[in-house]
Amino acid sequence: MFHHVKELQFNARVSKPDPRFARLLLEQFGGPNGELKAAMQYFVQAFGCRKPYPDKYDMLMDIATEEFSHLEIVGATIQMLLTGVNGELKNAADESDLMKTLDGKAAKEDYIHDALVNPHFFLVSGGTPTLTDSNGNPWSAAYIMGMGDLTVDMRLNMAAESTAKLVYENLMKFTDDPLVKESLRYLMTREVAHFQMFQAALDSVQPNFPPGILQSDPRFSNKYFNMSKGEDFKGGWNEGPSIEMGEEWQVIEDPLQHVIETDGLLKEVAEGTDRTEQSVQRDNRALSKERKGEVDKATLPMNGEISWSTYGSESEEMADTKSNGKANSKNK
Amino acid sequence: MFHHVKELQFNARVSKPDPRFARLLLEQFGGPNGELKAAMQYFVQAFGCRKPYPDKYDMLMDIATEEFSHLEIVGATIQMLLTGVNGELKNAADESDLMKTLDGKAAKEDYIHDALVNPHFFLVSGGTPTLTDSNGNPWSAAYIMGMGDLTVDMRLNMAAESTAKLVYENLMKFTDDPLVKESLRYLMTREVAHFQMFQAALDSVQPNFPPGILQSDPRFSNKYFNMSKGEDFKGGWNEGPSIEMGEEWQVIEDPLQHVIETDGLLKEVAEGTDRTEQSVQRDNRALSKERKGEVDKATLPMNGEISWSTYGSESEEMADTKSNGKANSKNK
Amino acid sequence: MFHHVKELQFNARVSKPDPRFARLLLEQFGGPNGELKAAMQYFVQAFGCRKPYPDKYDMLMDIATEEFSHLEIVGATIQMLLTGVNGELKNAADESDLMKTLDGKAAKEDYIHDALVNPHFFLVSGGTPTLTDSNGNPWSAAYIMGMGDLTVDMRLNMAAESTAKLVYENLMKFTDDPLVKESLRYLMTREVAHFQMFQAALDSVQPNFPPGILQSDPRFSNKYFNMSKGEDFKGGWNEGPSIEMGEEWQVIEDPLQHVIETDGLLKEVAEGTDRTEQSVQRDNRALSKERKGEVDKATLPMNGEISWSTYGSESEEMADTKSNGKANSKNK
Amino acid sequence: MFHHVKELQFNARVSKPDPRFARLLLEQFGGPNGELKAAMQYFVQAFGCRKPYPDKYDMLMDIATEEFSHLEIVGATIQMLLTGVNGELKNAADESDLMKTLDGKAAKEDYIHDALVNPHFFLVSGGTPTLTDSNGNPWSAAYIMGMGDLTVDMRLNMAAESTAKLVYENLMKFTDDPLVKESLRYLMTREVAHFQMFQAALDSVQPNFPPGILQSDPRFSNKYFNMSKGEDFKGGWNEGPSIEMGEEWQVIEDPLQHVIETDGLLKEVAEGTDRTEQSVQRDNRALSKERKGEVDKATLPMNGEISWSTYGSESEEMADTKSNGKANSKNK
Amino acid sequence: MFHHVKELQFNARVSKPDPRFARLLLEQFGGPNGELKAAMQYFVQAFGCRKPYPDKYDMLMDIATEEFSHLEIVGATIQMLLTGVNGELKNAADESDLMKTLDGKAAKEDYIHDALVNPHFFLVSGGTPTLTDSNGNPWSAAYIMGMGDLTVDMRLNMAAESTAKLVYENLMKFTDDPLVKESLRYLMTREVAHFQMFQAALDSVQPNFPPGILQSDPRFSNKYFNMSKGEDFKGGWNEGPSIEMGEEWQVIEDPLQHVIETDGLLKEVAEGTDRTEQSVQRDNRALSKERKGEVDKATLPMNGEISWSTYGSESEEMADTKSNGKANSKNK
Amino acid sequence: MFHHVKELQFNARVSKPDPRFARLLLEQFGGPNGELKAAMQYFVQAFGCRKPYPDKYDMLMDIATEEFSHLEIVGATIQMLLTGVNGELKNAADESDLMKTLDGKAAKEDYIHDALVNPHFFLVSGGTPTLTDSNGNPWSAAYIMGMGDLTVDMRLNMAAESTAKLVYENLMKFTDDPLVKESLRYLMTREVAHFQMFQAALDSVQPNFPPGILQSDPRFSNKYFNMSKGEDFKGGWNEGPSIEMGEEWQVIEDPLQHVIETDGLLKEVAEGTDRTEQSVQRDNRALSKERKGEVDKATLPMNGEISWSTYGSESEEMADTKSNGKANSKNK
Repeated sequence: MFHHVKELQFNARVSKPDPRFARLLLEQFGGPNGELKAAMQYFVQAFGCRKPYPDKYDMLMDIATEEFSHLEIVGATIQMLLTGVNGELKNAADESDLMKTLDGKAAKEDYIHDALVNPHFFLVSGGTPTLTDSNGNPWSAAYIMGMGDLTVDMRLNMAAESTAKLVYENLMKFTDDPLVKESLRYLMTREVAHFQMFQAALDSVQPNFPPGILQSDPRFSNKYFNMSKGEDFKGGWNEGPSIEMGEEWQVIEDPLQHVIETDGLLKEVAEGTDRTEQSVQRDNRALSKERKGEVDKATLPMNGEISWSTYGSESEEMADTKSNGKANSKNK
Repeated sequence: MFHHVKELQFNARVSKPDPRFARLLLEQFGGPNGELKAAMQYFVQAFGCRKPYPDKYDMLMDIATEEFSHLEIVGATIQMLLTGVNGELKNAADESDLMKTLDGKAAKEDYIHDALVNPHFFLVSGGTPTLTDSNGNPWSAAYIMGMGDLTVDMRLNMAAESTAKLVYENLMKFTDDPLVKESLRYLMTREVAHFQMFQAALDSVQPNFPPGILQSDPRFSNKYFNMSKGEDFKGGWNEGPSIEMGEEWQVIEDPLQHVIETDGLLKEVAEGTDRTEQSVQRDNRALSKERKGEVDKATLPMNGEISWSTYGSESEEMADTKSNGKANSKNK
Repeated sequence: MFHHVKELQFNARVSKPDPRFARLLLEQFGGPNGELKAAMQYFVQAFGCRKPYPDKYDMLMDIATEEFSHLEIVGATIQMLLTGVNGELKNAADESDLMKTLDGKAAKEDYIHDALVNPHFFLVSGGTPTLTDSNGNPWSAAYIMGMGDLTVDMRLNMAAESTAKLVYENLMKFTDDPLVKESLRYLMTREVAHFQMFQAALDSVQPNFPPGILQSDPRFSNKYFNMSKGEDFKGGWNEGPSIEMGEEWQVIEDPLQHVIETDGLLKEVAEGTDRTEQSVQRDNRALSKERKGEVDKATLPMNGEISWSTYGSESEEMADTKSNGKANSKNK
Repeated sequence: MFHHVKELQFNARVSKPDPRFARLLLEQFGGPNGELKAAMQYFVQAFGCRKPYPDKYDMLMDIATEEFSHLEIVGATIQMLLTGVNGELKNAADESDLMKTLDGKAAKEDYIHDALVNPHFFLVSGGTPTLTDSNGNPWSAAYIMGMGDLTVDMRLNMAAESTAKLVYENLMKFTDDPLVKESLRYLMTREVAHFQMFQAALDSVQPNFPPGILQSDPRFSNKYFNMSKGEDFKGGWNEGPSIEMGEEWQVIEDPLQHVIETDGLLKEVAEGTDRTEQSVQRDNRALSKERKGEVDKATLPMNGEISWSTYGSESEEMADTKSNGKANSKNK
Repeated sequence: MFHHVKELQFNARVSKPDPRFARLLLEQFGGPNGELKAAMQYFVQAFGCRKPYPDKYDMLMDIATEEFSHLEIVGATIQMLLTGVNGELKNAADESDLMKTLDGKAAKEDYIHDALVNPHFFLVSGGTPTLTDSNGNPWSAAYIMGMGDLTVDMRLNMAAESTAKLVYENLMKFTDDPLVKESLRYLMTREVAHFQMFQAALDSVQPNFPPGILQSDPRFSNKYFNMSKGEDFKGGWNEGPSIEMGEEWQVIEDPLQHVIETDGLLKEVAEGTDRTEQSVQRDNRALSKERKGEVDKATLPMNGEISWSTYGSESEEMADTKSNGKANSKNK
Repeated sequence: MFHHVKELQFNARVSKPDPRFARLLLEQFGGPNGELKAAMQYFVQAFGCRKPYPDKYDMLMDIATEEFSHLEIVGATIQMLLTGVNGELKNAADESDLMKTLDGKAAKEDYIHDALVNPHFFLVSGGTPTLTDSNGNPWSAAYIMGMGDLTVDMRLNMAAESTAKLVYENLMKFTDDPLVKESLRYLMTREVAHFQMFQAALDSVQPNFPPGILQSDPRFSNKYFNMSKGEDFKGGWNEGPSIEMGEEWQVIEDPLQHVIETDGLLKEVAEGTDRTEQSVQRDNRALSKERKGEVDKATLPMNGEISWSTYGSESEEMADTKSNGKANSKNK
């Protein structure tokens, strides 16, 4: 269950209205890397963790709830940047006020020009935030991703925090308002903090590479196909050992010739790796069994109905029991 | 700022897994009439009310927060209905378990059939809810609407509650699970409650018709054009007085002839109404001034910066001051 | 079947080209509250009424057809506002004309600036309207809603008319052209008229609350959860009787505590209402039977094929028969 | 202005309900090649023709209006195929009827199975058509195209009619209902008729190749780059003369080598063509002047306001005058 | 398999940065008529031709690959037009450089103004191309069309080339940069070349009208319904013989009257054509059998597995065999 | 420039047609984590690297081109799984074949059932792949992300490879066809290989944390807000040092109280970190200068025009020069 208090998590303020920056800031309200995306992504991922990984559930809901609170900060800032717009729209009968409002701008011409910066603020939302990005595209759940697997979801979240951090960094170049910059810097910093939380969560799952369960085929896991000819370069991605698995990169300089010679790679052989088909199968079975066991034990109903919450003192006991093994320690 | 407690607002439970009903229930998780739509619509509308209409802000945030809590109930129910899916997917290496899991269904054929009910549960989300409707369309902010005007927004919200109520009613026909039905009935009932809250809020704004500020043109406000010929009917929409304005409906039986005779309606005259161009202009000016005043007084910065919240004891005082006039009484 | 006459329903004119206002006006051509949305929403809803509610079918098709005619007015206005753009684009070989056209603006710089106001007018549509909103989002059927139930659909339509009315009101602030304002005012007024038609249609269905068939659970229909703490207010939405059902609002001041004490609301009891579980079940059955009967009687095929129209004199007779009971009186 | 009569253009009937075929038929109601797409595409294109090409405007509006009438036929057919769904949903309180309705299918299991065929029919639209394709994607204005140029628009329309024709052809394989097939065959045939109308309109514009105004660069207009190696073939597309311009195709067998030798094609020379840079420039200027003149003459305001329609006898006179030159003959 | 070489197919260059034109040029990068649309449309259509029509497969892959190469040219041009943006964004700590960069523009105000031209370049993509149209709509696969039938697909492709050609023509009016114009002219010309390739491919399929297999119903194939009254015109689309089928157009001047008289067209009779129901059925069967045979013979597996490619010398032989009949001659 | 050879990179084969698995496999053809997303994401990111980071450009284009080749493998597999569909659709006139085709299934009923698995295969694409996910949503460029910064883009790509890997893993559970599994395993393995390539590229950029340029605010970078109450857990994300920055996590157990006490965090102080405002500013300036320098040096035009490629021997020389410093060694 969610609660709300009317105080913002951060004391967001603006020095004066600025509809242009309000449009830019929409990117973090309803954009693909913005606060709603983050909030919903972690919230949705949390459902799958509730039973098998209650420590990750706790962390995801802590961060999701903070991101909802950040969404509120961004929306409040946009609302303040649009101060005056709603009142002016209420002035539907008389145009004389257009000569004295909106931060000193006088003419109707200017007013129309402001409207073109983002017509939705003036025609549709009446001077309140719209759930779009800075180009007016409505927010879409296509932005959020979760795969029901911690080794993938934590990496998705680290990527999401990276993009959000950079958008805030970029936004700061387009305002001179020190109060707005202060809020942006706070929000930017929290993305850095969250990144590290997700990384810690990923590290607590071992092994976490490759993502998921199945091991890669040793014949193909360390091959580098030189598909773009001319001005070729070497780097850690095509020479030396691969980072996670420590296999030696093998460059295929002429992919077409190679593909023809290997009958479309069917005759490819493993090189530069100690892994074998046998070791792969063994690892697949072992990890499969372990991860399935973790999930099934916590989710499959013993007898009768499935429930989500317990209420009252019970819930405390359940939490105590569940924390064994999963969480380093319990904090109340 | 939002908070979260791990208990659900309603003790949602399911009797047994049912991926098919999980797909149907998505309609209220990520569908156009679902809980996220309601939550976000009221949340976004609230920004504009914060300063000029703090009582409506309070109500919108109360309901928005409850809708987020309902979104959590729906998601938790879907997660419980998908029990077993995630564990089975972790069984990546060995297929033998397919013979004994998932509620007694045996063959891989059945498993594939389940996947076709909604491939995203099995391929993409790993047995967790997806933020789509029941046909797999991702949630879009195009679903939410707010116009920065209480006389419109409250009507939008009453419509939204109506649709949500009916979808829950329809959903109940497609499950036999008494525990699921219990949750659905609770959620359905709350839509009825919220409808009446929004209606009360609309009634507290007077006048609230027509929506917005500007009065309608008396030459056109009570004309009924008979645009669809054959099997014509009479009803309160084309005979007798109009409901809100009490003007007598005037039916134009042959619109083409009428349009030609009136030079494209330019020569239309008012009939069946006491309103005149003068009365309209007078009302426009009066309401314009009043509503603009309400908004400007509460939002335009007196001196220097604009802020959203006050912290500590200050905030209580501010609330006391603001409640005069707007709210019937204050409750702490 | 539709027909078309080349005269517009309203004699739309513009004083001079204005590509900027053309962009703004797109909001009502291809936007979420615009004329196409209204036309298609009523048109789609009408299918379900054809047999069981022929009077509502008549009304919906009258209004839908008028909205198509309004869509034509808006499109024609945009086309006139873009006068000169298409001709200039045909001037593909020689740039000298850029010095004398487009309302006195001289330089290519201005021409490019115009293009940035909405590139689609210049690059894609060749100076004709595009079916998008004012920010360039293509019209989507996600905007239209209909639930196959008059008590919901009429409320959706009243909300739709409210938003459309307000967008026209807002648009009027961004043009000085008296001829354009004249058309906008006509279109705005018709939304007010349609609102009252839909309200009359809703009132003719009794009972119409709650929307749909099923009654609400008396334990939850008049509870108000105070989910947003601080600066709380009272109003008709949380004190006194609820508007439609006349139940006394019961405020739950501390929802978390309440939820824990009631085992997730499972132990909630009804207060402030005379309704009981028995009365609810009785009402459900009665209304269910009545509404199902109305629909089934009119739609289920007696024998053999199902058809939509009758042709020739037959159709007149059928209409006579059908009007009994449904329509107040028949008009030919 | 549009009118509506309640008779369908074609006497659409169905033999019995069939929710599965109703889902498939949605493809032509709200799909990318369906009737709404056609109707809106021609309707939108027509705006630009109104003044400069009134004969094409007449044709586009004739066909657009017919397509709206076909949309009505498709929607009516879907509604008839869903007979029984709405009534059954009204049966919200009592489930006993589930044993006897819906074409003999007995169990609730079957009812749920029907719902999964397209949940929107059962949960959202209440047994009425939804404006989506057969996979549930909402109709989008991204489907419609018009470029403000007859040589392009007519080709777009011929392509649109081709796809619509083939979808009807495919649909016929998935129903045994002879009445439904009869309607489908009618609709399919009309696409063939419309194709030929658009082709005649295209032929009446001379020259119509290349589309638009500007001639192609003779150095590049007849080159064929062999970009996909292996199993190469010859055909009218890479040997002999090109169809429209009669230039000899020149195959570039090794594009990489060729690009390097010609400094990225900057040094390319014209071969197999008589056209020269001079002839191109001359043609560009001539056609530019002609087409610009046609448009400007008809659209640029002489003095004062711009209007769309004339009313009364005037309109007849205007039509007489305008038909000279544009239309072969006038028909009243 | 695709390969890449780092040289562009055309030596694209720009004279100086121009973020405004970069925005306009996006139309051909990620717009509905742009290079990605063309590349993906032909690429997707090619799959179905691989086995039954290897000559068309060769052509489609030649052109698709060229379109990918054009996408690269357009993207590279946008990147060059955005020169300076990425570097400036890296200047995150110090704003002093804003006084001297970006082509002489000095003030931060100008920098902000540039950002508003397309915020995504500055906030999200860091000065690199975004896969949207010029209004910021993300590219959608709804733009691409293919029906698995050459008589339709080739017509779709001719339409696509027509629109792409005209967009390039329009773009040329909005830049003065001679180097950019040079690239645009090259790209425009290639659309003209591709158009003719697709037309030749269409002509090589006989018969190719009507699209698909089924013949049209002779009662409806040459009727013209006069659905839009007033200012009617005559042309090749409603008088004389139809172009493809040579049937005489029959105008139905009063569609409503006609529909009623013919019982909803059920009693319509064929006029102005020699085709009969018998001839139609005969043609349907013949063409059906032929086209089905072509496809089945090439695709249905003889024995065991289905494969796509052969590798090594085999592939040459296969190609030799296949080319008989399909291709005029073979070229290696 | 791209090239194409007709051999697939991997010898994809199928044992027999299977339209159901074809639908599931669409997830990797046109889904949000599929091959087109990967190909386009790396392709678009590459533009920004071309000049300043030619080694990363080489790697991105190598991988992008391989992903296009994988897209071809997936599409070819879907096409083979749909063997028989196109031929059957050509059988438009005669239904008798429905008794003997499509892998032994006899009745039309089965054929219709197949169509409902994914109507688009049967109605729209004619048995060829459609560019959608497994639920029919068209591919959208909203799926691709790139920020013009290697520290973010490489992390986005690692996340993308993680999701793609897991979707292939999941897909393998839904087919028994050993040939299809072989292809899926190959494709899955390549995602693992690419992951490690991007990780190596990220590691070659130092420092790479935080993403972008600006350092985080030390007052907020190591705070953990306990926003979700009940069943709290400890882990590396809220106790001990943070992973990247080594700051000690500070848990704020009661965020509301804390926010009020710190005046909305304005009075927050840094704890558990050695970083100071001064050190942050110093790092910001240093990194800003360095990264801006790298980009500007390589991209800002020295004199006159900006070009993308050089042709002939020049290009080799340029590459030699550029590789200094960026690439470990050069490989030709």
